[in-house]
Amino acid sequence: MGGLSEGLIQVLIPAAALLGIGFAFLQWVLVSRVKVSGYADDESQENNLIESGHEEGFEDFEVVAKCAEIQKAISVGATSFLFTQYKYLVVFMGAFGAVIFLFLGSVKSFSTKSEPCTYNKGQMCKPALANAIFSTIAFFLGALTSVLSGFLGMKIATYANARTSLEARKGIGKAFTIAFRSGAVMGFLLAANGLLVLYASINLFKLYYGDDWEGLYESITGYGLGGSSMALFGRVGGGIYTKAADVGADLVGKIEKNIPEDDPRNPAVIADNVGDNVGDIAGMGSDLFGSYAESTCAALFVASISSFGFTHNYAAMSYPLLISSMGIVICLITTLFATDLVEVKKVSEIEPSLKRQLLISTVLMTAGAALVSFVALPSKFTLYDFGNDKVVKNWHLFFCVVTGLWAGLVIGYTTEYYTSNAYSPVQDVADSCRTGAATNVIFGLALGYKSVIVPIFSIALSIYVSFRLAAMYGIAMAALGMLSTIATGLAIDAYGPISDNAGGIAEMAGMSHEVRERTDALDAAGNTTAAIGKGFAIGSAALVSLALFGAFVSRAGIETVNVMNPKVFIGLIVGAMLPYWFSAMTMKSVGSAALKMVEEVRRQFNSIPGLMEGRTKPDYANCVKISTDASLREMIPPGALVLVTPLIAGTFFGVETLAGLLAGSLVSGVQVAISASNTGGAWDNAKKYIEAGASEHAKALGPKGSEAHKAAVIGDTVGDPLKDTSGPSLNILIKLMAVEALVFAPFFAAHGGLIFKHI
Amino acid sequence: MGGLSEGLIQVLIPAAALLGIGFAFLQWVLVSRVKVSGYADDESQENNLIESGHEEGFEDFEVVAKCAEIQKAISVGATSFLFTQYKYLVVFMGAFGAVIFLFLGSVKSFSTKSEPCTYNKGQMCKPALANAIFSTIAFFLGALTSVLSGFLGMKIATYANARTSLEARKGIGKAFTIAFRSGAVMGFLLAANGLLVLYASINLFKLYYGDDWEGLYESITGYGLGGSSMALFGRVGGGIYTKAADVGADLVGKIEKNIPEDDPRNPAVIADNVGDNVGDIAGMGSDLFGSYAESTCAALFVASISSFGFTHNYAAMSYPLLISSMGIVICLITTLFATDLVEVKKVSEIEPSLKRQLLISTVLMTAGAALVSFVALPSKFTLYDFGNDKVVKNWHLFFCVVTGLWAGLVIGYTTEYYTSNAYSPVQDVADSCRTGAATNVIFGLALGYKSVIVPIFSIALSIYVSFRLAAMYGIAMAALGMLSTIATGLAIDAYGPISDNAGGIAEMAGMSHEVRERTDALDAAGNTTAAIGKGFAIGSAALVSLALFGAFVSRAGIETVNVMNPKVFIGLIVGAMLPYWFSAMTMKSVGSAALKMVEEVRRQFNSIPGLMEGRTKPDYANCVKISTDASLREMIPPGALVLVTPLIAGTFFGVETLAGLLAGSLVSGVQVAISASNTGGAWDNAKKYIEAGASEHAKALGPKGSEAHKAAVIGDTVGDPLKDTSGPSLNILIKLMAVEALVFAPFFAAHGGLIFKHI
Repeated sequence: MGGLSEGLIQVLIPAAALLGIGFAFLQWVLVSRVKVSGYADDESQENNLIESGHEEGFEDFEVVAKCAEIQKAISVGATSFLFTQYKYLVVFMGAFGAVIFLFLGSVKSFSTKSEPCTYNKGQMCKPALANAIFSTIAFFLGALTSVLSGFLGMKIATYANARTSLEARKGIGKAFTIAFRSGAVMGFLLAANGLLVLYASINLFKLYYGDDWEGLYESITGYGLGGSSMALFGRVGGGIYTKAADVGADLVGKIEKNIPEDDPRNPAVIADNVGDNVGDIAGMGSDLFGSYAESTCAALFVASISSFGFTHNYAAMSYPLLISSMGIVICLITTLFATDLVEVKKVSEIEPSLKRQLLISTVLMTAGAALVSFVALPSKFTLYDFGNDKVVKNWHLFFCVVTGLWAGLVIGYTTEYYTSNAYSPVQDVADSCRTGAATNVIFGLALGYKSVIVPIFSIALSIYVSFRLAAMYGIAMAALGMLSTIATGLAIDAYGPISDNAGGIAEMAGMSHEVRERTDALDAAGNTTAAIGKGFAIGSAALVSLALFGAFVSRAGIETVNVMNPKVFIGLIVGAMLPYWFSAMTMKSVGSAALKMVEEVRRQFNSIPGLMEGRTKPDYANCVKISTDASLREMIPPGALVLVTPLIAGTFFGVETLAGLLAGSLVSGVQVAISASNTGGAWDNAKKYIEAGASEHAKALGPKGSEAHKAAVIGDTVGDPLKDTSGPSLNILIKLMAVEALVFAPFFAAHGGLIFKHI
Repeated sequence: MGGLSEGLIQVLIPAAALLGIGFAFLQWVLVSRVKVSGYADDESQENNLIESGHEEGFEDFEVVAKCAEIQKAISVGATSFLFTQYKYLVVFMGAFGAVIFLFLGSVKSFSTKSEPCTYNKGQMCKPALANAIFSTIAFFLGALTSVLSGFLGMKIATYANARTSLEARKGIGKAFTIAFRSGAVMGFLLAANGLLVLYASINLFKLYYGDDWEGLYESITGYGLGGSSMALFGRVGGGIYTKAADVGADLVGKIEKNIPEDDPRNPAVIADNVGDNVGDIAGMGSDLFGSYAESTCAALFVASISSFGFTHNYAAMSYPLLISSMGIVICLITTLFATDLVEVKKVSEIEPSLKRQLLISTVLMTAGAALVSFVALPSKFTLYDFGNDKVVKNWHLFFCVVTGLWAGLVIGYTTEYYTSNAYSPVQDVADSCRTGAATNVIFGLALGYKSVIVPIFSIALSIYVSFRLAAMYGIAMAALGMLSTIATGLAIDAYGPISDNAGGIAEMAGMSHEVRERTDALDAAGNTTAAIGKGFAIGSAALVSLALFGAFVSRAGIETVNVMNPKVFIGLIVGAMLPYWFSAMTMKSVGSAALKMVEEVRRQFNSIPGLMEGRTKPDYANCVKISTDASLREMIPPGALVLVTPLIAGTFFGVETLAGLLAGSLVSGVQVAISASNTGGAWDNAKKYIEAGASEHAKALGPKGSEAHKAAVIGDTVGDPLKDTSGPSLNILIKLMAVEALVFAPFFAAHGGLIFKHI
């Protein structure tokens, strides 16, 4: 019966987190050692890079110096963008923190009197004002951790990119190892950091809350809200930044001027590479951290109002955190298979090696989850199930975790099938370029729509099983199961933009054709892993938001969310519309910002003499500024849509309409997000398929510059905002609205539904 | 209190239907008179056309002869396609009729004993076997009426197209009148025919059912199922046909060979024009007829289990039919404003004239609905509301009708705003062509997403109001309200493809540039009205399927459709996925068929000597055959998806999962459908905006053949399958699954849910 003592758990969780951080540090040392001799600190990286060239026996001093220079430009651009963004975010955090405090404080008119508990009848709980204060604090903590996660990820990626390019001179295997190790630094740092901060916050809050677990875990949900709201701006702002630069650079460079991708003559090329780091790395880091934080909070909240919450079974209560701790250990072992146990020697081994990571981590984690479930949980206990008690056994929860875990693998493999150019879907899209851009776009859209089928069935199956076995707690654990291998998921995901950047630096530094071919191969695999990462992010977001939705329904005291109730139905249909509204905003933003970028790039080509001939340097900084300004300005309306909608729905239309809204945006958003992300990934790789010309079929369509290739470039450009701006931001839309509804649930339940009350 | 006697109603309804048919005939006479002298029958149209040229003083005998020849080719192609399609449909009808009979008959093991009624407790109702037999008969009747509606529409359109081209020589006003009158023939014939067949069926069924209204109206729902299943194949098959031809013709003709649209040298040009008639006319006719039939059936079914059903208040029971009858009269008056009272003299008056039709019919119908509501309904009665009784007043129902009616107007006007090139959204899309096809596609997709917002809010408002006032009966009446002006809606909708065809014939017959400019202007307005028609079709489909869904929930005996029930939730998320699966199938079908068409067109250009120079004629028949074969083969998988899914869900997963499935596909499908249809319409008109060059801005982007115009053509081509295949077919997906669930509800309630029963 819950064989672990409280003391042991208090040691195990932070130990796992510290192990993860230590492992991340070790990987970082390995990355820095390969490149750097004599110096170990980040500050002097340019010098190190230059020297490393000497040390490894490469005499091309100029190339290494150029790499260092480009790396610095990218790093400075990314850092300056993030710091500018943070200024906006501080204002937002202050304002939204005040809203949380005022709304939640007003539930009982800022009274400081203790209240009878909502669920644990007969007990006294802390006052509503405490919930207001601690929710606000948790919100700040979550926001800061999220921002930190994104920032660290960006720092690591901009540290690793040039090192990967330089290693690519030695061979594909070395370059792959460096890129992957750097991804692992980010993955482990984020996973461990998230666990540690959450664990520390719970222990700190407990100093005040003591035995009132219901109040404690209710206020800790603010942590998830903070994490996801920062992720929203990170994803949207970063997504607009990166795609404005990318689309703008491609439209003039590739289509009009016929110069290669990442050509240093293109004024938008630095902005494009900065974008990879602020969008794909920092945005993704914040996003997955948010999912992790929210699913943990949802699980903890549901647990706190269940029998082991009431009986204060500490081991059982800590089950979600223990699963995450186990995940870090499992991922650590998994990483060794990619970096040490098996060596990548050929291009064709890259994708299998990354896919193997997914499989190994899933198999090992299945065993890990079994261990945790049987050791930490009592063999039988009761769960809160919308007012009823549900008897659950420990192996039920094991199945919940495993169902999410394996659903994640199925989503990952399906995404790979639809976005990798090793299979027929992408090859068909490439083939349709024979008849021009129009058929390419039609086939690409159809591919994205089709790629939704298997993920949705696997999510549905996982929801049904975990819901039946352990109600809302089961869903939350399924989400955590999918996210338990987050360190590995983030590692292979971050590997993509790092390789992309490495390719850009190799091109700009004028490295040999051979090096560029190697980085291209890394990058093509990276497109697929990025799509897999997005698949995970979306799948876990679906489960997380359902868990949060369930917690919201419980907390708001709604008996049934009946579709036949008109209040619910209008929420459902309007909720299903929100992903479209949101996508319209973000896509239009990318389009408008890209048009501005195009004008600036054209202006520079026309007005700077000698630019096209490579005699003078373009004004990179102006393009960086255009992307920065556009993304900061344009991230506000979609951000406001997501944050304000639940407040309006709850305050004016009440908890039932809000419940419908959440369900509608969840079931509709997940489809839009998956199809957008896979369509974009497929177009990108269809283009790469033609460029690489690795088969007879591909050769017949190519080479670069052929009519079919031009059509493929158009598809790729259309896909950019779909896969890197709208699509991935939608995860956050569905999660964030759900966690916001949960945090504000006490207010909506007490004061919401103003309009219907008066009609 | 229900002031109309049964006898009077028995006269009024058929009188209105006959009035509509008479008015359609009158319009047809006017259309044929303008063109024909001495002959009035359809058979000798080629001769008539030739002679009319003489009569009107136009001596260009050759042009007229050519028109006649082209018209014949189009008419023969369309007729032969439809008859080939009917062969498949007969097989399908036989098979599906057998399924209906077997499933419903098995509910009570084919017993011939009378049963206690389900709702009207204490009364005896006819046996389940009778429901099986009559539902099957109703299914056949609905299917036949639907097929007939589509066929008649096609006949009228192919009769009117050449006449419109010839009239265009006399001026824009004359051409407009002919095109609009022809549209009206179709609109009135379909609306009146639908009403008449349904009315006759009810009276025939009553000979057997007598006082058992519950059984009578339950089996009459088969009529809606028949209508919509034919509409499904009409829309999907016709949609694939028309777009395979259109895309194929454009890809080679406009993009590769740089010859104008509808150039007679293009081998796919006849197939393209045939497509307008079988897809946009016959498909649309079947579709809107299906919506009309289904919403009437849903209203009648709910009414039959309400107090005025139990008390046999004939006038109140006939309310839905009376509203439709009034609609025919109102539309008749409205039509006069376009054809007789106000004359179109300039190009700029076309769109306002068509828009005015919407406004006039809506305003007049508001008064008409008031009259019917206060005369036919008792001032107060009770309605069935999921097991409870709801007291409803006659003015409540008036508001339900009016809320649907005005929501339709809002949807129509919003669609016009987003798809007409008179406003900024389309102009922005045209502007984005400056930077190429990629930005055009991005802006177009964003426009489509954005265009969803207002229609969804107006549908939501109309649902809330009518649901609150009169539960599911209110929703059904709101749907009928939106469809009450169907005759006008169909008239302005059919006007579009007729004008499109007229333009094609003018080009092919080598008419003057001036004539072609006039038909182009008619066609540009037609693109907008076609989009409006689709908006109506989608909006009404949303309301109709919700009404059917409500009737299904009642009939299946489900207490609440609770989203927090895992059975419901998995249905919801899988249902929301179905529109994507369906769209993937239909878009891929169009893409593949278009590729085949491209190859054939290229082959002909390469292998037929003198074709490009206009010295020899292409082999039109081969292209017609490719479209026909592709559409018949490719319509089966999406059709099967729609028809089989509810059967599988109901039989294996039970009524709750099926309810979730219906709700999910409804709220998700309506978004996909609206955005697809508006995106496509906007791209088409952005292209026309550049071509027409009517403003400084448009001139700067043009002329035809400029880079911006080429980018616009790519957008237009991508939009073709979105707006004419996937988008409009989705209405039918959501309606058809709902009506199928309703018809099979007794079976699912008795024997469904096999999987969950055994787990």
